[in-house]
Amino acid sequence: MTERTPAPAPSTEGSALVVIDMINTYDHDDAELLLPASRAVVPAVVELLDRARTAGVPVIYVNDNFGEWRSHHGELVDTALAGPHADLVEPLRPDGDSLFVVKARHSIFYETPLSYLLWELGVGHIVLCGQVTEQCVLYSALDAHIRHLRTTVPHDAVAAIHPELAHAALEMMRRNMGAHIVAASDVTFEDRA
Amino acid sequence: MTERTPAPAPSTEGSALVVIDMINTYDHDDAELLLPASRAVVPAVVELLDRARTAGVPVIYVNDNFGEWRSHHGELVDTALAGPHADLVEPLRPDGDSLFVVKARHSIFYETPLSYLLWELGVGHIVLCGQVTEQCVLYSALDAHIRHLRTTVPHDAVAAIHPELAHAALEMMRRNMGAHIVAASDVTFEDRA
Amino acid sequence: MTERTPAPAPSTEGSALVVIDMINTYDHDDAELLLPASRAVVPAVVELLDRARTAGVPVIYVNDNFGEWRSHHGELVDTALAGPHADLVEPLRPDGDSLFVVKARHSIFYETPLSYLLWELGVGHIVLCGQVTEQCVLYSALDAHIRHLRTTVPHDAVAAIHPELAHAALEMMRRNMGAHIVAASDVTFEDRA
Amino acid sequence: MTERTPAPAPSTEGSALVVIDMINTYDHDDAELLLPASRAVVPAVVELLDRARTAGVPVIYVNDNFGEWRSHHGELVDTALAGPHADLVEPLRPDGDSLFVVKARHSIFYETPLSYLLWELGVGHIVLCGQVTEQCVLYSALDAHIRHLRTTVPHDAVAAIHPELAHAALEMMRRNMGAHIVAASDVTFEDRA
Repeated sequence: MTERTPAPAPSTEGSALVVIDMINTYDHDDAELLLPASRAVVPAVVELLDRARTAGVPVIYVNDNFGEWRSHHGELVDTALAGPHADLVEPLRPDGDSLFVVKARHSIFYETPLSYLLWELGVGHIVLCGQVTEQCVLYSALDAHIRHLRTTVPHDAVAAIHPELAHAALEMMRRNMGAHIVAASDVTFEDRA
Repeated sequence: MTERTPAPAPSTEGSALVVIDMINTYDHDDAELLLPASRAVVPAVVELLDRARTAGVPVIYVNDNFGEWRSHHGELVDTALAGPHADLVEPLRPDGDSLFVVKARHSIFYETPLSYLLWELGVGHIVLCGQVTEQCVLYSALDAHIRHLRTTVPHDAVAAIHPELAHAALEMMRRNMGAHIVAASDVTFEDRA
Repeated sequence: MTERTPAPAPSTEGSALVVIDMINTYDHDDAELLLPASRAVVPAVVELLDRARTAGVPVIYVNDNFGEWRSHHGELVDTALAGPHADLVEPLRPDGDSLFVVKARHSIFYETPLSYLLWELGVGHIVLCGQVTEQCVLYSALDAHIRHLRTTVPHDAVAAIHPELAHAALEMMRRNMGAHIVAASDVTFEDRA
Repeated sequence: MTERTPAPAPSTEGSALVVIDMINTYDHDDAELLLPASRAVVPAVVELLDRARTAGVPVIYVNDNFGEWRSHHGELVDTALAGPHADLVEPLRPDGDSLFVVKARHSIFYETPLSYLLWELGVGHIVLCGQVTEQCVLYSALDAHIRHLRTTVPHDAVAAIHPELAHAALEMMRRNMGAHIVAASDVTFEDRA
């Protein structure tokens, strides 16, 4: 489309909370392995959501669309809420201020408009929570590092399929991708003022 | 997310019809210049939609979300249909089989999952219609060329703001981007059988 | 490779001069059409090179490698200097401080490390010169715009194959890509101090 | 530049051997940890090089340029050969048929022309060797998977800094990225005939 009002050059001082793949019907491969871990992290994700919303920090759900290119994100939420694992989705459902980005190939950045959205929002620091630690979370932390974003990963707000791989993934993020690995209760959203 | 059923290597023999930025409230800069051209191309776009749907060719709406990261595509359609220019949107609205991809930065490919969707669908040939000829259509034809896709642009199904720039844009697509520039009535969807 | 010293967050206040595809043997399609235009812009490109070097502004040659993945850029320069059109290459050859990026698919940004190099250099403003106005220069200005870089294109330092398409391309850059179109003598490199 | 002879649609049946970051002065962070592992994999890399060259399989060196944007790849090789660890570089140096791609941000694909080069060569299967297993090799296997390439990683031809992370990395590649993890002696280059 044509240009609208020209954007001012945004700062990169803000934080955003990114919730990865938690809008889920849990009927995919390895779901049985993932479910207990997902259940365990829901309280920490909910706490992060509450704190971000209270602080006015943008909340962005980046979610696989599970091949449903005909469905929109409201339908994805409805489907997940109608399924047998609605109890994992209901507490952390998007509210009216939540932003939503669809991803298709694992990483939250690869062939998605997330970089642009963060730029528009003036965000240079992202807090990643959700699943799967040793898959999408790892890949997203790598892509954030490559794009020069500051990244925090609360280790008790990311869910794993394989605990040993998840442990290694968090260590890779810390050592090689410059990510801060902290407890969810220690996450600090950067000052936007 | 975790992998589902491994995808077979798709062919690239299929066609898709891509409708660019026609879900629109026409309240942006230059909308007054664009409106007559948009109105003029609606019948050709509708004809292409009919033919594609009859032939079982995938129809993909790739549309700016106009900064509405909270809205889903159903809401974008509803908003456009509630506006003063609903007559331009109603005839070509998405049906239940239509696919939908949100773009943010002009090109239908840049930081969107369109490449992946086309790959999944086995599509190697795209027919571009919609607007704006000398902007998003041109940029999308370039990005298709760079990605080795075959591209057809029906000159009477793309709407321009500046006729001279649009004329040059179509010539650039033909000479330098390998696009086939034809009348909408001469568009041939490639055989999927 | 492993990380070296962590990079400080660079500014985006600096300028760079980008010389596109001027290291050339002129034996490709349309070379006969391009040659007179290339010859005509050499003095303006040389003037820009002189001013950039004097001001300490980085000079980056971004050049097609013409499929010569076995050759390095020194060999590309040598080959061009050994050819029948060495007089177009000799005056603007890279010096010991010049940076060099190989491109393969038209745009200076698409699948090249240029974005990263500009980031490392603290460059947010690029001056594009070289060829071909209605092809690589246009595509590069588009990709710069999408990446939020400030862009200046000196109209007398870019060479065209088709004057009418080049005229339209410059107008597209000005109207739709936020580029400043000026005479080479009016180019201002942004202050790096 | 302008188009040359239009490329035919290549197949994706061929293999290529990709040698990652082995042209190295070993003066970076963690080099002391890496050196013994690098030394240990040289014979397997040399064997793969010999087999690929004998079979006519393309060999592509994808290497960090260590910030040396003024140097070309011949100079990078010369520098590595003049350093204290030339014995690790000499046996696997590029020959006159080797292809060379410079990377800047870890992955062999991110902002490099490698995808295009593979496409031109008709390559759909890559064999990754070199270093560092839990860093660039892992990231490259991920990016290959995202791009639908078939990938083989010979576990005894990739060098690690941290054996435990490398072990996890190989397991991630096998489980989640569809890579074949084999001994170097079991690598099969796909038939190009």
